[in-house]
Amino acid sequence: MTHPTAERLSALRSRMAATGADLVAIAPGSHMDWLLGFHPHPDERPCLLLASTEGEAFLMPVLNAEGTRADTDIAFHTWSDAEGPEAALKAALKAIGAQGARRVALDETMRADFALLVLGALPGAAHEFTAPTVGALRMVKDTREVAGLKASAALADAAMQAVFAAARPGITEIELAEIAKGHFGANGAKPLFWIVGSGGNGAFPHHQTGARKLQEGDAVVVDIGAVSNGWPSDITRMLAVGHPPEGYEEVHAIVERALRAAMEAARPGAKAHEVDDAARGVITDAGYGEYFVHRTGHGIGIDVHEPPWMTSTSQTVLEEGMSFSIEPGIYLPGRFGIRLEEIVVLRSDGPEILSSLPRDLHVVNG
Amino acid sequence: MTHPTAERLSALRSRMAATGADLVAIAPGSHMDWLLGFHPHPDERPCLLLASTEGEAFLMPVLNAEGTRADTDIAFHTWSDAEGPEAALKAALKAIGAQGARRVALDETMRADFALLVLGALPGAAHEFTAPTVGALRMVKDTREVAGLKASAALADAAMQAVFAAARPGITEIELAEIAKGHFGANGAKPLFWIVGSGGNGAFPHHQTGARKLQEGDAVVVDIGAVSNGWPSDITRMLAVGHPPEGYEEVHAIVERALRAAMEAARPGAKAHEVDDAARGVITDAGYGEYFVHRTGHGIGIDVHEPPWMTSTSQTVLEEGMSFSIEPGIYLPGRFGIRLEEIVVLRSDGPEILSSLPRDLHVVNG
Repeated sequence: MTHPTAERLSALRSRMAATGADLVAIAPGSHMDWLLGFHPHPDERPCLLLASTEGEAFLMPVLNAEGTRADTDIAFHTWSDAEGPEAALKAALKAIGAQGARRVALDETMRADFALLVLGALPGAAHEFTAPTVGALRMVKDTREVAGLKASAALADAAMQAVFAAARPGITEIELAEIAKGHFGANGAKPLFWIVGSGGNGAFPHHQTGARKLQEGDAVVVDIGAVSNGWPSDITRMLAVGHPPEGYEEVHAIVERALRAAMEAARPGAKAHEVDDAARGVITDAGYGEYFVHRTGHGIGIDVHEPPWMTSTSQTVLEEGMSFSIEPGIYLPGRFGIRLEEIVVLRSDGPEILSSLPRDLHVVNG
Repeated sequence: MTHPTAERLSALRSRMAATGADLVAIAPGSHMDWLLGFHPHPDERPCLLLASTEGEAFLMPVLNAEGTRADTDIAFHTWSDAEGPEAALKAALKAIGAQGARRVALDETMRADFALLVLGALPGAAHEFTAPTVGALRMVKDTREVAGLKASAALADAAMQAVFAAARPGITEIELAEIAKGHFGANGAKPLFWIVGSGGNGAFPHHQTGARKLQEGDAVVVDIGAVSNGWPSDITRMLAVGHPPEGYEEVHAIVERALRAAMEAARPGAKAHEVDDAARGVITDAGYGEYFVHRTGHGIGIDVHEPPWMTSTSQTVLEEGMSFSIEPGIYLPGRFGIRLEEIVVLRSDGPEILSSLPRDLHVVNG
């Protein structure tokens, strides 16, 4: 399928007109992928897509120009290692009428030296990031994007089931992670992360999966994801070896209620913080507020973490077609951690969950 | 072996005193690896090592704090998703006496939003990048680093020989690249790049390895590298299928002479541009100056591309212990490209080549 480049650049120009940004600068990465369907090799040589309301230009290292030429019709302003990028940047800005830009939206992921090169060429210009422009556009997924996320979620479900099937006393966290990675890899996907936090390790939300062996009485957080055909997945489920630890069921039920409350709050027109408020309210009311140390969720699209952010302060208004995680957790130091995570696509009547796996504790024999 | 953190932080403070930088800000990445021997999980949450001449502090997302705590004794100034990083950054700067910093050295690879967060907290401060501080220190390798680069280079030699052994008419560029990747992977290394440019494709220095089949009369550029035990490799050699194309031998000999001239110029006390000048001079004198479209080389260490840069303008003074590539090339559109690349470590009497492979054209039967 042809990438909808013209449509997306046109949508970007509309957002720029609406928000008052008169230059958008995008580095090789996921914003460029979304806009153009490709990005040149990213390295230390400044390479930028520059967009004004008049048109687009590329600041392009000459080394990448020929290899990239077939991918786009946008004019290249090339520079060589001997010349450096300054003159080419100036020419590119002039070509799109942005030499006097006053409000510059920078790709927040670009290297600091790229960003300060752009700002240095526009003395006195105010900067912002891409949340109001490219970010706002990327948050709402089209049918192709949703189909990609769904297929990726199905693969993650299967990988999670492979982990469940392999879990037993004596297997290490790393070995379980390898099961997930192997399942992803055998299906052509590239593993992105593989958190297996057993026993007390589960109380670190970003635990570095290690050599600890699963043992009778462990609760285990399993949070895995991979990129499949360009689309990421992200799912967290809980398993236990034999009887879960003292107090486990009560806390699992609270996290489940928090997730459901967040699902209820996630409606077109609601603000993102209301989703966080709902989950956090349930956990706080149950007396565990201090043990829910992260946001309730993050958007997911080309990037596994992207806007909208489900934080306590986000004023982002949720719209139909947005895709994001809902993943409340409670982390009890020295005891265990519990996180349950769904990826949803927001429909007119609420969130559609992409996974088909139940969120119940999966118990294996101790 | 224990990472020499204290020694390196002390060296950094000396460089700061010498250069006048009163704050260095480092994001999770290779600069942090070099200084501390680790880096926290890099994502969109601002996480920074902040160093003044008085001491160090970490701006740390609370989510990563517990998982990182065991890796360092440096004080953490944590922030949660609900709070945002501004207050913690302010506290961290104050803790190291840098709340009034006037010259800030930013890790040039950090995200734009991290960089502008730091600069926003220090209104009026001038910024620079890390070349004079961390960069200057990293350029000179210690014996452990050189040993790592040597072992990685030996593996790349073996991978190149595997490519030579597999080359034949009808095999595709991608299949040859897979031979290299497979060899690296089977030896525990992670492939970094795998440029196989056959026939006219060789004239694109950063050609995207594709489905073209090798055929009788092709010259083929093979540029491969991988990370082995944390150390990268980078080598380019030429092969031909049967008789190389018309004029090949003459151009290969010019590139070889350019490489040798650059080797002669690379001496402690010389400037990096003299290395580029030497290679470029040979190629220009031979009438091919316009076809040598890139710098002569790049440093190599934790990063496969790092300072010093062998460009026509670099004033960096070469020192014993620096490691870098010497890789002149001539790219003739529609005909063929030739690049020869060595990684060297600069010794008191000149460069030591890490590869054991000859640079002659490797001819396979057509």
